Amino acid sequence: GAKALLVPVQPVDIADAIEGLPETMQAIAFRLLSKDEAIEVYEHLDSSIQQLLIEDFKRQDVLDVVDKMSPDDRARLFDELPAKVVRRLVEQLSPQERQSTALLLGYGAGTAGRTMTPEYLSLKENMTAADAIDRIRNLADVSETVYYLYVTDTARHLSGILSLRDVVVAQPQQTIGEIMTRDVVSVFTDADQEDVARMIQRYDFLAVPVVDREGRLVGIVTVDDVIDILEEETTEDIYTLGGVQSGSDDYFQTNLLTVARRRVVWLLVLLITNTGTSAVISSQQDILQRVVSLAAFIPLLIGTGGNVGAQSSTVVIRGLNTDRLRTIGAFRVIYREAAAGAILGLMLAIVVAVWAYFLQQDLAVSIAVGVSLMAISILASTAGSSLPLLFQKIGLDPALMSAPFITTAVDVLGVFIYLSVARIAVDATRG
Amino acid sequence: GAKALLVPVQPVDIADAIEGLPETMQAIAFRLLSKDEAIEVYEHLDSSIQQLLIEDFKRQDVLDVVDKMSPDDRARLFDELPAKVVRRLVEQLSPQERQSTALLLGYGAGTAGRTMTPEYLSLKENMTAADAIDRIRNLADVSETVYYLYVTDTARHLSGILSLRDVVVAQPQQTIGEIMTRDVVSVFTDADQEDVARMIQRYDFLAVPVVDREGRLVGIVTVDDVIDILEEETTEDIYTLGGVQSGSDDYFQTNLLTVARRRVVWLLVLLITNTGTSAVISSQQDILQRVVSLAAFIPLLIGTGGNVGAQSSTVVIRGLNTDRLRTIGAFRVIYREAAAGAILGLMLAIVVAVWAYFLQQDLAVSIAVGVSLMAISILASTAGSSLPLLFQKIGLDPALMSAPFITTAVDVLGVFIYLSVARIAVDATRG
Ligand SMILES: [Mg+2]
Ligand SMILES: [Mg+2]
Ligand SMILES: [Mg+2]
Ligand SMILES: [Mg+2]
Ligand SMILES: [Mg+2]
Ligand SMILES: [Mg+2]
Ligand SMILES: [Mg+2]
Ligand SMILES: [Mg+2]
Ligand SMILES: [Mg+2]
Ligand SMILES: [Mg+2]
Ligand SMILES: [Mg+2]
Ligand SMILES: [Mg+2]
Ligand SMILES: [Mg+2]
Repeated sequence: GAKALLVPVQPVDIADAIEGLPETMQAIAFRLLSKDEAIEVYEHLDSSIQQLLIEDFKRQDVLDVVDKMSPDDRARLFDELPAKVVRRLVEQLSPQERQSTALLLGYGAGTAGRTMTPEYLSLKENMTAADAIDRIRNLADVSETVYYLYVTDTARHLSGILSLRDVVVAQPQQTIGEIMTRDVVSVFTDADQEDVARMIQRYDFLAVPVVDREGRLVGIVTVDDVIDILEEETTEDIYTLGGVQSGSDDYFQTNLLTVARRRVVWLLVLLITNTGTSAVISSQQDILQRVVSLAAFIPLLIGTGGNVGAQSSTVVIRGLNTDRLRTIGAFRVIYREAAAGAILGLMLAIVVAVWAYFLQQDLAVSIAVGVSLMAISILASTAGSSLPLLFQKIGLDPALMSAPFITTAVDVLGVFIYLSVARIAVDATRG
Repeated sequence: GAKALLVPVQPVDIADAIEGLPETMQAIAFRLLSKDEAIEVYEHLDSSIQQLLIEDFKRQDVLDVVDKMSPDDRARLFDELPAKVVRRLVEQLSPQERQSTALLLGYGAGTAGRTMTPEYLSLKENMTAADAIDRIRNLADVSETVYYLYVTDTARHLSGILSLRDVVVAQPQQTIGEIMTRDVVSVFTDADQEDVARMIQRYDFLAVPVVDREGRLVGIVTVDDVIDILEEETTEDIYTLGGVQSGSDDYFQTNLLTVARRRVVWLLVLLITNTGTSAVISSQQDILQRVVSLAAFIPLLIGTGGNVGAQSSTVVIRGLNTDRLRTIGAFRVIYREAAAGAILGLMLAIVVAVWAYFLQQDLAVSIAVGVSLMAISILASTAGSSLPLLFQKIGLDPALMSAPFITTAVDVLGVFIYLSVARIAVDATRG
């Protein structure tokens, strides 16, 4: 990989280099940067190091850097800092920056309002293309992007949108009202950041405008932040699938008791489902007592059932999370998975039955293992595909809810089927 | 969600609506679109429907639409079509479009060369800003983006880059050579598409130029395609974690035998690891024969071990895939996970020991379950964190390789520890 990329040093690379230094060196290295570099590098540092620098620095130096940050990046920093430090910093920001920060912090975490930046470029309908270019020239430095231009009326209502491409291509004397598109795709301040991100992904936009309930333009969400949002949301989904509750913070910065607390709930839930399996085994102890070699295959059956169920639920849950499942009917999905489970079950049952016979020389055990593996495989793929769809339907997170229920169904029913089939097979072969 | 988004109809929405129609209606609905709409809608359709329309349409209509597609979207379509259809289509493309398609199809799947579009805008160093704006005005329609402008010399070597913002902000008489940045971040044609995507994510670019080994500019990869690449790569990672081998095609379009084939290998690998567990249990049948109630807890211990291991490996593998683990040392990660496993193990052991005693009224079983759960939890978290790091180090995909090895370690060693501790506890309490 590395040799196929040609990369001069960028601010984020300097930030990474500083993060790699021992803690005592970080502040020293940061001070060696020029003011302009410091401003650019600071926003890419981990929040723990941003905080360390704030505590370490003389008041004025910090303020200059924090004042120059993008409002959205600053809002994210303030989320992480102790309230006392934030209050002190906010007091000393320039009035305009203070106002924009307060605006963003007023919206809930994970909403468009919190994620947006108020630094966009707006135009009026009666301006000419030439006027617009003058305005862009003057305001380019204080806007997050100049590629999308937003048209507002005197009450700041969003009435149109156009791109810098449109303005450059237009005749200088054309008015903005003539060039702009009135059909604006926009989101409300309380829209979920993931919905906003999916919208930008779907329509290939570079940014999307955010309006309040009165239709007034208050900010824009940009594509660079959307990529990070999608990564964050996907990490959340993967963590949930893996049984880890994700916090808003970086796992590797979190203390161990919090880490354990975020995992133990899940493990306790699965313990409860496991008691069901134990209860089934306990209630059938007599058959195990008669043929103790049956016990050797319990982990294999449960393990395979779990794996088949995980395969089905992985595909379905990912399909739901990326919206790719929308156009396919639920029944077709479940039917496909059940059929795949049957094919898999047949292949595995043959292999395992032969192997079990070879291992124990006991036809009854071999039959019980083969038949129940086939049944468990169909059960697992059906449960693994239908339960996520069911949970999605009733408004629960499929990634979170599916595993315990799939496990319970597969383990409890699976062991029950296995020991029941074994009982019949043992009775039949041994009279 | 839906009410927080304000969305006028876009071409991709029309494409979705057509996909939702019964097959016989799809071609009819598509024909109702104006030529311009058809061109825009076509590239958003599923490849199966694109193919259906190609077969259904009169030659000239198809050609017009396919000729107008972006070269990168067309290359992706040609990947899916039968070779015969592609050959017929390529023959009849306009010479320029034929050449650009052939160029892209010449690069390997999953490389920057295959993903890029050759429709970028290039300038020369001696042009003025005013000349540049004239050129942009003329070529805006045939470029994928006009926001990044690439400066090349007479031999097409990439010598600089600037943004439309830079050109608009500059004095009209300034030359491009004066305004441009000479430090260009670029990638070679054979760079992995995921590395290119991660680069754009890291540096917040809208596009990155692709050069051949002689440094000649051949195309650009744009941020909208990067978002889709990242989604595709993440789906691949999630599938791998879930034990599903991903093909280049959409799962929901794939036939069931292929689906089963892509899953059975994984299940067979895990079957082999499960034979280890069965062997351990078989070899210790005497203790199970003496205290058959021990068997009831095997699924619980193995299940919990598997879950703890999955939690650790999920966090570590996701950290590796998103590059977030780079700045943290491997030993610190393993130490953290082992410690978290110990905390979790202690909490779970207490709960389970009490519950096991309540269920079976047998102190030896209760002690064996509690002690071995603690040991299994530490073992699982240590294996779950160290094995992915090890596989990454030796160049194997951690998401693919980790699960069977973690399962084997946890199940085989776990059952062995459990039955060994049980033997000691039983001997001690029953003399
Ligand atoms: Mg960083
Ligand atoms: Mg600012
Ligand atoms: Mg897109
Ligand atoms: Mg931003
Ligand atoms: Mg950023
Ligand atoms: Mg989500
Ligand atoms: Mg969320
Ligand atoms: Mg074209
Ligand atoms: Mg970024
Ligand atoms: Mg493209
Ligand atoms: Mg596209
Ligand atoms: Mg990958
Ligand atoms: Mg890949």
